[in-house]
Amino acid sequence: MTPYIDLPENLFGITSLLEYRLDTAEPIRVLTQSLLRGPSSLSEGERELIAAIVSTKNCTAFCTAAHTTVADHLLHGPQSAAEIVANVEEAKISEKMKALLQIAASVQENGKQVSKGQIDRAKKAEASDREIHDTVLIAALFCLYNRYVDGLNTRLPEDTDYYQTLAARISKSYMRQPQ
Amino acid sequence: MTPYIDLPENLFGITSLLEYRLDTAEPIRVLTQSLLRGPSSLSEGERELIAAIVSTKNCTAFCTAAHTTVADHLLHGPQSAAEIVANVEEAKISEKMKALLQIAASVQENGKQVSKGQIDRAKKAEASDREIHDTVLIAALFCLYNRYVDGLNTRLPEDTDYYQTLAARISKSYMRQPQ
Repeated sequence: MTPYIDLPENLFGITSLLEYRLDTAEPIRVLTQSLLRGPSSLSEGERELIAAIVSTKNCTAFCTAAHTTVADHLLHGPQSAAEIVANVEEAKISEKMKALLQIAASVQENGKQVSKGQIDRAKKAEASDREIHDTVLIAALFCLYNRYVDGLNTRLPEDTDYYQTLAARISKSYMRQPQ
Repeated sequence: MTPYIDLPENLFGITSLLEYRLDTAEPIRVLTQSLLRGPSSLSEGERELIAAIVSTKNCTAFCTAAHTTVADHLLHGPQSAAEIVANVEEAKISEKMKALLQIAASVQENGKQVSKGQIDRAKKAEASDREIHDTVLIAALFCLYNRYVDGLNTRLPEDTDYYQTLAARISKSYMRQPQ
């Protein structure tokens, strides 16, 4: 797998792109940090499930592995994130999270796929406007990430332990770590 | 058209969303400003064509009207932006821009749609790595914008003069204007 542009050879997926152009990387990190780690009535693990379902549906190997692993780090539930996103309706999660994950799945296809019925279901399950807003924006952000990572044909790590190390880091923060 | 969440009634499309949550709006504005108005070997009009082709293919009425109008403000060419994006191969634009717009059109579908052949064509037409990178990231950013605007069912203005006023403003800057 050879990237379409000259990227650092020792970096993979999105991490190689965030080092390629630092002035665009910074607001991408800030946006991600606010949405996924900032104050919210959705837990960090629940927000990572939104990232995971979109990345899975976009078939973006790097982002899917990274965000299912991060969600597993944060959720500690009876099921893995991969199991939850593979069958939302049967998953051992709240009705509200099922409704929000179905909205995220529609956003992955196209914004117009989000239906009034999906929104009504989420509101009936006591999802707030802010939770619906954040679900749509997180799903849209991962449509950006997935296209950025795949559209430039970024490298994948051969060692899958890589994702455990990455997940441990981004479970804490999406901001750039001190070198 | 009633938005799915409670948004300011006097604002339309993305502008209503950027007022809804200010802490996420700020990095979205900064990213857009860097990509579409920052230093680049692509002109601002050429970069707006990338926004316009993606928004057109996503059928997002607000973003399509906004960015075709902005591109027209900036390009002053023999064809309108709407004409160019409707038929890239026959458009009166450079071979490099044709190649980059085809890459953007693939990103709109899915990152994996970008082919080695499309990249080779762009490089043969002397597109730099940075131009290819920015094309992919601008296209991915508008996949975010289009889903955000449509996924929350934002309002459209009835008066189409609205887009002329908006375009005059964002032709200068995507950053928040003093009130």
